[in-house]
Amino acid sequence: MASNPIVDMRDIQFVLFELFDIERLGRFPAFAGLGRAECEESLRLAERISTDILYDANREADRVGIGYDPATGEVHIPAGMKKALAAYYDAGFLRIADSHDEGGMGMPETIAFSCNEIFTAASLSFFTYPILGHGNATLLRNFGTDEQRALYLENILSGHWGGTMCLTEPGAGSDVGALLTKATRLPDGGFRISGRKTFISSGDGDLYENIIHFVLARIEGDPAGTKGISLFIVPKYPLRADGSFGPRNDVLCTGIEHKMGLHGSATCAMSFGENGGCVGQLLGNEREGMRMMFQMINEARLAVARQGLAVGSSAYLHALAYARERLQGSDPADASAKGPVPIIRHPDVRRMLLRMRSYVEGMRMLAYYTALQIDTARHAAGSEAAEAGALVDFLIPICKAGCTDSGVLVASEAVQVHGGYGFCADYPVEQLYRDVRITPIWEGTNAIQSLDLVMRKMLLDPGQKMYGLWRERVMRTISESGGRVDGRYVSLVERAVGALDAAVAAMKARYESRDLLQVYADATVLQQAFFMASLAWMHLWGLAAVTEKLGVKPEGEPAGMEDDAEKSFYYGRALASRHYLGAEFPLFFGQIESVLAGERAVVESTPAFFSGA
Amino acid sequence: MASNPIVDMRDIQFVLFELFDIERLGRFPAFAGLGRAECEESLRLAERISTDILYDANREADRVGIGYDPATGEVHIPAGMKKALAAYYDAGFLRIADSHDEGGMGMPETIAFSCNEIFTAASLSFFTYPILGHGNATLLRNFGTDEQRALYLENILSGHWGGTMCLTEPGAGSDVGALLTKATRLPDGGFRISGRKTFISSGDGDLYENIIHFVLARIEGDPAGTKGISLFIVPKYPLRADGSFGPRNDVLCTGIEHKMGLHGSATCAMSFGENGGCVGQLLGNEREGMRMMFQMINEARLAVARQGLAVGSSAYLHALAYARERLQGSDPADASAKGPVPIIRHPDVRRMLLRMRSYVEGMRMLAYYTALQIDTARHAAGSEAAEAGALVDFLIPICKAGCTDSGVLVASEAVQVHGGYGFCADYPVEQLYRDVRITPIWEGTNAIQSLDLVMRKMLLDPGQKMYGLWRERVMRTISESGGRVDGRYVSLVERAVGALDAAVAAMKARYESRDLLQVYADATVLQQAFFMASLAWMHLWGLAAVTEKLGVKPEGEPAGMEDDAEKSFYYGRALASRHYLGAEFPLFFGQIESVLAGERAVVESTPAFFSGA
Repeated sequence: MASNPIVDMRDIQFVLFELFDIERLGRFPAFAGLGRAECEESLRLAERISTDILYDANREADRVGIGYDPATGEVHIPAGMKKALAAYYDAGFLRIADSHDEGGMGMPETIAFSCNEIFTAASLSFFTYPILGHGNATLLRNFGTDEQRALYLENILSGHWGGTMCLTEPGAGSDVGALLTKATRLPDGGFRISGRKTFISSGDGDLYENIIHFVLARIEGDPAGTKGISLFIVPKYPLRADGSFGPRNDVLCTGIEHKMGLHGSATCAMSFGENGGCVGQLLGNEREGMRMMFQMINEARLAVARQGLAVGSSAYLHALAYARERLQGSDPADASAKGPVPIIRHPDVRRMLLRMRSYVEGMRMLAYYTALQIDTARHAAGSEAAEAGALVDFLIPICKAGCTDSGVLVASEAVQVHGGYGFCADYPVEQLYRDVRITPIWEGTNAIQSLDLVMRKMLLDPGQKMYGLWRERVMRTISESGGRVDGRYVSLVERAVGALDAAVAAMKARYESRDLLQVYADATVLQQAFFMASLAWMHLWGLAAVTEKLGVKPEGEPAGMEDDAEKSFYYGRALASRHYLGAEFPLFFGQIESVLAGERAVVESTPAFFSGA
Repeated sequence: MASNPIVDMRDIQFVLFELFDIERLGRFPAFAGLGRAECEESLRLAERISTDILYDANREADRVGIGYDPATGEVHIPAGMKKALAAYYDAGFLRIADSHDEGGMGMPETIAFSCNEIFTAASLSFFTYPILGHGNATLLRNFGTDEQRALYLENILSGHWGGTMCLTEPGAGSDVGALLTKATRLPDGGFRISGRKTFISSGDGDLYENIIHFVLARIEGDPAGTKGISLFIVPKYPLRADGSFGPRNDVLCTGIEHKMGLHGSATCAMSFGENGGCVGQLLGNEREGMRMMFQMINEARLAVARQGLAVGSSAYLHALAYARERLQGSDPADASAKGPVPIIRHPDVRRMLLRMRSYVEGMRMLAYYTALQIDTARHAAGSEAAEAGALVDFLIPICKAGCTDSGVLVASEAVQVHGGYGFCADYPVEQLYRDVRITPIWEGTNAIQSLDLVMRKMLLDPGQKMYGLWRERVMRTISESGGRVDGRYVSLVERAVGALDAAVAAMKARYESRDLLQVYADATVLQQAFFMASLAWMHLWGLAAVTEKLGVKPEGEPAGMEDDAEKSFYYGRALASRHYLGAEFPLFFGQIESVLAGERAVVESTPAFFSGA
């Protein structure tokens, strides 16, 4: 595959086919006969649409932004973005992982994940459009009536109609249970909806013929909190019985957000029932809105992890291309050489590049591994499925928080490699740095992820089974790396497992002594440590795999590898893994020391002690 | 002093008057009779201009931006920015640290530093205007002829004329010696200048009657590299002998940069002598341009450290104010309380706030301490002056790199505290996050700072005297903290000094075995470790000071302190120091482990091993 400015296709191939041997999914009936050629065809198509159309559309959308007419409430999407979406829908990517029975391509989630990584690397804004429609289609399939499915499903999946997920309200973000949107029963079995929602991605736009809003609301009389929330289907144009559009529903985009980045995505404030005329239908059972939503939460959060990976990938490759071209200074490795040299010859630039690469490839391994567990949980049987499902639950908050923080880190390093030009809009990294900053916030802030990991996935998990499973897999990699990977890396990861054991035990002791505030205070640092350790696990695995491919230890002065594209890919990948393990990962031990210290300043800092504001 | 949205005036007072006892500068004749009241008057005036005029001007300028007319090359500065500048000049702030003889206020640099912190906290863009004029005035004083001083000095210092420093060229950023701008001798002793400069802050604008460009150029025939560079005075309107303006010089702004942030600052591409008619005068001696510039480099770099501190301070206080107001979720400390509660009650929000505060107050202590050493180096005698000067040299790269990286960190945490709103332009933190990203880049990228620290200030310093001096001061604080501060914090900092000894020794061994590339590869991490250790030193010092003020150990459940503004300030400050030492500083030990590991992947990663772009 040709090189492109946003993702290293060779690395995607390596992780899918060489490291994780994705073709083994062919053992499940749903993927019988799955072949590498077929997967690569999808990847190439995703690459083509992304680089031919979407890449430029994304740059244009950043400059032009979303149009909004306050008089009519109409929202205008930039032309390039529409064109890219049409190509995406036409190629069937929205349904890539849907089964053949469902009219999809029947590909594994892991392959869908990697195709979507490519699209997201070309444009973070782009993905806010199709992803919501697909989520709604999944909800319709799982909980809709036959009639509802017949009315909406095909039009959503074909890309004619869009979807939204109207959850957040001005006073109810992280605390979803506080939402105020009301649903009142109508005599015909429908509901009258009234309330305001905020931060609604693709809440309106001239992109789709109709938009099917999925709205969380509380039926009058239902209890407070999340347990009283129901889910409603609220079309922009309600359908008559014959499927034709009725008059427009009382749903209005009342404004769009002016944001730091993500200018190609319409982030709308929405008003439902301003004039008392908003109607909707219940989806599934009453008061089960949150339960239904939570069924999709793992995939939604993994999609956000993918955003961190994808923007990081694009930022890294742009920095790499710049570092190869930009001439500055003399060669520090050869004083006699005539300057100036490409800045990639300067050790600190190379350190930044290797750092970025090690995070990007580490994230890719970890996220693909998690996607693979989703496929396994869905298609395997018995304990294999159960273990895969438990691993997914454990890895999701780690992936979401870790990959989004790392996406920000990598984008920032990419800006730094560009020097002053990195601060200027002429270079794509400037946009990437702004765009990616939303990812640690949405789909549950990283603080929420940390609490989810430490509480639900660890301390509330009897016997810490999920942690035990994660630990077992890491130990397996450690044991399989012995003899293949330099002992100093293997023992570093082994030492890390011991350190995590101690940190988990310390948190458990606090929990059991009802010192919950201290558990909360250290949750984020422990989550960050788990992410770093998970990347170390993956890099150890990757290092063992490339060492096998190379047939020699990837160390010192390699003979004849620089001129061989395959060998230099493996060797470079080994260098990135070594850099991560040898130079980045030691920070993990500082994180563990921080958790174990159990500093109580956070717990003791009641609001009165914050002066100055 | 009243509370304001950008700096904690109480903390500035604490650091100046209580921690460092700035009035002791009164022992030097230049500051005889220096009193707290006089200093506070300046601080209050800076606060008033900053909050009454500059704060809003900064928000306006971010939206409106700099105007540029390609037809005429004219540059338009937003009105609010002009008004704020007028107030700044009228109050005499440009000359605050100039001696009475020079027509200044005769205040210490440390007081000037804290006033300028306040202005910068209100607007990072603002300071790009006056700072350059003042730098040029200093150069004129030190190197100008009587005639040059008479022509320019007063008009620059009064704020009627602006200044620029034209150093960077499209192909010569970090590598200044590569510059191509030429100077050709004219029969009248002047020079004809020709070349292109880029990233010129306040390169043009309708703000000043005249702009005096200071341009680095190479006189025809002079050697390549930095040793062949001379410095030229190039006025926008050259002056006739009678002081009146002659015809406009052949200097043109050919474009302004479209930047991620700093929209209130005119970042200009400048063309000199496009039509062969640009004239300038030599300043100082030929080929001594870089030497003259380097005399100002410490102060310029400390001013950039101040930018990180100031934006961090504003970001922190905005996040704090938001966290006090924003209601979300129930009280984790009191399940029976009726929600929702201000988010400051959530431990992870408090962790972020305490983290921000600990970085801001740590930066403030470290930067003020460094400014105080500048005053001491200038006004003390003998070894006291020499030691202070050496400490300044050692601390400057640590301050510049550490405070700018931390400014970015704090701004990012402030965005995170705001959740989705932090990504939206309605809240000031969105702008702060964009603005501050320039600071790790300009005035020498942080990689340059790291090399300066590790090479010039450490390995090339015979016997590592500067490091020895830094170490001695830290040990003094450790010894003075004994008995006043909890032993676990004291021994943590003591352990850190030992770890740094080991890291410095390891770097020295590599240097002596000519393993220079490995030294370069680990320079940034070692610089980061020095910054973290310097903040730990300051926090230990601060913790000892507030413990003394409180009269009790700041730990556990304090009785009666929450209602006493003074006591709660001290107690809160102690909590921030404890959080830094107990929860943030452990990461330092991971950095040291990384340096000691001496991972060679960076050195071995020749360009061929970076695939994908």
